[in-house]
Amino acid sequence: MKLYRYIPALEWGRSYRGSTLANDLVAAVIVTIMLIPQSLAYAMLAGLPPEVGLYASILPLVAYAVFGTSRTLAVGPVAMLSLMTAAAAGRVAVQGSPEYIAAALLLAFLSGLMLLALGLLRLGFLANFLSHPVVSGFITASGLIIAASQLRHLLGIEGHGHTLYDIVSSLLAHIGEINLPTVAIGVPALLFLFWVRKGLKPLLMKAGLGERLAGMVSRGGPVIAVVAGISAVAGLGLVERGVHIVGDIPTGMAGMALPSMDFSLWAQLAGAAALISVIGFVESVSVAQTLAAKRRQRIDPNQELVGLGAASLAAGVSGGFPVTGGFARSAVNFDAGAETPAAGAFTAVGIALAAMYLTPYLYFLPQAVLAATIIVAVVSLIDLKTVRQTWRYSKNDFAAMAATIVVTLAAGVELGVTTGVVLSLLLHLYNTSRPHFAIVGQVPGTQHFRNVDRHAVVTSDCLVTIRVDESLYFANARFLEDTIYEILANRPDLEHLVLMCPAVNHIDASGLESLEAINERLRDAGVTLHLSEVKGPVMDRLKRSDFLQELAGKVYLHQYEAVEDLDRECARGAIERTVLPTPPEAGERRTQQLVGLKQAR
Amino acid sequence: MKLYRYIPALEWGRSYRGSTLANDLVAAVIVTIMLIPQSLAYAMLAGLPPEVGLYASILPLVAYAVFGTSRTLAVGPVAMLSLMTAAAAGRVAVQGSPEYIAAALLLAFLSGLMLLALGLLRLGFLANFLSHPVVSGFITASGLIIAASQLRHLLGIEGHGHTLYDIVSSLLAHIGEINLPTVAIGVPALLFLFWVRKGLKPLLMKAGLGERLAGMVSRGGPVIAVVAGISAVAGLGLVERGVHIVGDIPTGMAGMALPSMDFSLWAQLAGAAALISVIGFVESVSVAQTLAAKRRQRIDPNQELVGLGAASLAAGVSGGFPVTGGFARSAVNFDAGAETPAAGAFTAVGIALAAMYLTPYLYFLPQAVLAATIIVAVVSLIDLKTVRQTWRYSKNDFAAMAATIVVTLAAGVELGVTTGVVLSLLLHLYNTSRPHFAIVGQVPGTQHFRNVDRHAVVTSDCLVTIRVDESLYFANARFLEDTIYEILANRPDLEHLVLMCPAVNHIDASGLESLEAINERLRDAGVTLHLSEVKGPVMDRLKRSDFLQELAGKVYLHQYEAVEDLDRECARGAIERTVLPTPPEAGERRTQQLVGLKQAR
Repeated sequence: MKLYRYIPALEWGRSYRGSTLANDLVAAVIVTIMLIPQSLAYAMLAGLPPEVGLYASILPLVAYAVFGTSRTLAVGPVAMLSLMTAAAAGRVAVQGSPEYIAAALLLAFLSGLMLLALGLLRLGFLANFLSHPVVSGFITASGLIIAASQLRHLLGIEGHGHTLYDIVSSLLAHIGEINLPTVAIGVPALLFLFWVRKGLKPLLMKAGLGERLAGMVSRGGPVIAVVAGISAVAGLGLVERGVHIVGDIPTGMAGMALPSMDFSLWAQLAGAAALISVIGFVESVSVAQTLAAKRRQRIDPNQELVGLGAASLAAGVSGGFPVTGGFARSAVNFDAGAETPAAGAFTAVGIALAAMYLTPYLYFLPQAVLAATIIVAVVSLIDLKTVRQTWRYSKNDFAAMAATIVVTLAAGVELGVTTGVVLSLLLHLYNTSRPHFAIVGQVPGTQHFRNVDRHAVVTSDCLVTIRVDESLYFANARFLEDTIYEILANRPDLEHLVLMCPAVNHIDASGLESLEAINERLRDAGVTLHLSEVKGPVMDRLKRSDFLQELAGKVYLHQYEAVEDLDRECARGAIERTVLPTPPEAGERRTQQLVGLKQAR
Repeated sequence: MKLYRYIPALEWGRSYRGSTLANDLVAAVIVTIMLIPQSLAYAMLAGLPPEVGLYASILPLVAYAVFGTSRTLAVGPVAMLSLMTAAAAGRVAVQGSPEYIAAALLLAFLSGLMLLALGLLRLGFLANFLSHPVVSGFITASGLIIAASQLRHLLGIEGHGHTLYDIVSSLLAHIGEINLPTVAIGVPALLFLFWVRKGLKPLLMKAGLGERLAGMVSRGGPVIAVVAGISAVAGLGLVERGVHIVGDIPTGMAGMALPSMDFSLWAQLAGAAALISVIGFVESVSVAQTLAAKRRQRIDPNQELVGLGAASLAAGVSGGFPVTGGFARSAVNFDAGAETPAAGAFTAVGIALAAMYLTPYLYFLPQAVLAATIIVAVVSLIDLKTVRQTWRYSKNDFAAMAATIVVTLAAGVELGVTTGVVLSLLLHLYNTSRPHFAIVGQVPGTQHFRNVDRHAVVTSDCLVTIRVDESLYFANARFLEDTIYEILANRPDLEHLVLMCPAVNHIDASGLESLEAINERLRDAGVTLHLSEVKGPVMDRLKRSDFLQELAGKVYLHQYEAVEDLDRECARGAIERTVLPTPPEAGERRTQQLVGLKQAR
């Protein structure tokens, strides 16, 4: 039944039991408590009214529960996508205007369409364009930007911008206008939330709570800060003293409506929506896989695209903004014992109830407290350790990561990711365009063949064997030709050239064309080309071309046979066989003393 | 001495001798005779006045002689670049206007700068983006467009456009205005030139000429057509009857001048110049390598960029248009015995003499004859055989080729190449993003391990070994994770998982991240990850990360050791070892009958 594949809820729904319901309900309550301040905060980060955050946490969760494959992923607004939404919507409208909100909705809708299309066309592999260093660099850089952008709420001053430089210089320009009551609320909230992350859990455990329960309760830290903040502002009348509050949040849920059908706006937002889709998908899949593996469950990445696409579409038509699976929230959902995506649907009910009955109580919630929760969340994303490790591991990967970080900080999120993706593609092409080739010789007395530069092996003047350590495809086909012509130009006595192919996993049409050119040009130069140790599937494919008929020499199953056979052919002339001494120290290459040996095998 | 590397003329110039001079002079005379009509024809194809073709065949040849590495490449105007020049210049100016000519010069200049920069930065690998199917499809499609575009000269009617559809519909609209005297000259010239390609050489050989000489003389066919055409038009007064002629060509050489410094024009032409550079380079290098290999010489692709860049720059400052190494002309140069690039410099002298003294005699040269030479030249480029072979060899490569052909014909050369390049990159990424993984088992009684789907091998329920047949990098890192989690979800008894890596040539930071995630998630699920047969350079790199410390299991030098060791660990419980029967027919997978075997190794 095909439908099962696209609607996983049909499958887990059939075996839904009472005990599962109880577990899912408990998890939903805990996630709801966590999600209320988060959804308000991320809406603020995206430059949107607080209710938009709530709307984004209702219908999208139901949609994911129906179409998603992760049992425990908690979908909703997340910091990274909120920042990207602010950047994209800010380009087409003024923050606070109805057009700005419309743009945010449209971003969610477009991103939903794109994710759905990618999923239905099974194009999830496109997310592979985002290499790990690029994602990691992007997260670190946007974490810095987000933290900087929230300082204004903490200090009660202006400080806008989409790049670190803009934000910081804007903050500095207004530094004289700091609102002390705001600072008096924001800074303690920030310190408290930082302490909660590490300090509350051990305290609760000392007080006798079990480790798991203590962990879950300590996730409720933001709620304490929210309640304390509201009480302080309301009790001390701080609104009159310049503390910004959340204010009126419309009660109830948003009506359903299609987003703007202004196609010039679609075109303007399409690029940003694509980036939001891919970044959201990559992050969410990685969270979902981590959690699924813990219980030996699995997720289907292409169906995940469908699930996240449905969630984003739902956000777009119900007054929300782009959503995806969040890391911290999903971990809480998992720890709290959620067993099925129904937990997400129950969370949606919780948020809907909050939107209907709780909003009046949030009137006095100070923005500084929300800013503090955002800062605490994103600071944990800033990962300088990975930057250091990547530097140590690979300079190429580091270059892609550094470019992503620098461009994101200096020119904004969209250009940052794009630069990283293009650079990592270019570096990959550059690397595989110069694959490793080794001239090999026979280890004396064995049937093994090793690199002449690393081992003491037997070679001959009339025969050279080149081991190709990479598949042959368009990016490296020409390099193979160059390498062979260079060898050819330096070997006047050469009669046979063997390409040893045990590591060639495939040969595309460009590689085939190069082999044909090599065969022909070697023949013109009086040298015969042979192949050895060609893998089965590669051979099957070569048989579909004319190459094997045109090949001047033979295809040997084993390199040993090739040498046996060709040495006999060479033996007509006097054969000069040479044994190379053990190779010089790595990095230092002395003139190799060739010991000439007449050998008459 | 570094200078030698950048000025190859310093090297071959030192050993220049009298006999070399004689050979180079003979080749130069023959190539000059061939190049005069060609340079006029390709200028016409590019929509430029005829003298521009001559100018492009003087200084650029000298520049290549100094900086190029091929001994026998004949540089000058070629059909493909002329077409691309017409498309690009036609976008910014009206054909025939001084701005149009200025755009063509600027294209040559920009392309020269780009080639030089690529060469000096050793970025020749960027040409690898152009896979063989894309180049081949592009040549076939642009050959068709060029041939169609020349029909108007043959028929004496209008028929403009940059796509096949535009050209053909424009021709059909004017079909009633056919000029019969033009047809009477053009069609016989066309038939004659087609016949010359195949028929003249055998005839000359029958008349007693040697094969090589006959081959060279038969290349002079166009000269016969030119002389006959001029005589007919001049003698019969056909200009009054509507036959278009070349007309006045200014005598002498163009002055040297820098091209337009209008940087908005630079920006408009930069993309086209980049395509011209890459297409010209790829074609030229392939010709140069073919010829060099015949004499066991070699060319340096990065220095070729410098040589071709110098030639294009020279064209741009001396009134010419984009040039590169041409196939037919270079082959004639080679056959005629050219030994050094000096032959090219001598050709330049020949063309300069022609520009000074011959142009008055070309006044009556009918454009129909030039069109006929172009058609004959490009029809040989249309290569449907390769299209068929590619279809048979690889559907992916065929898709890239077909897209290039269709888009080039339908939307023009620039979009065509771009589409092909992007599509082949995407297909490559798609393919390597789903590499081959095999679950392997031990061939009974040996130390060999083979795919369980293809061979009768021994496996165990507590241990699975996965052989990875590809390097691990960002495009496939996630696929490896998906594969492993899928296996994990289906194997409740699994305790150990071994990744067998003999075909893993490198692991980038994304691959490493995946390995770390796999290691952690397997540990969460109670399964230990091990590696086996990791290559030396890959191991060296892994040692620079924390992975080897974090790895739950071990790294085994040989898969055999891994199985020995882990079987012992598994043996604590009862070990169910199973022998799979010989695999089912390919394509059809029956339920595998597992034969349980208690084995106490």
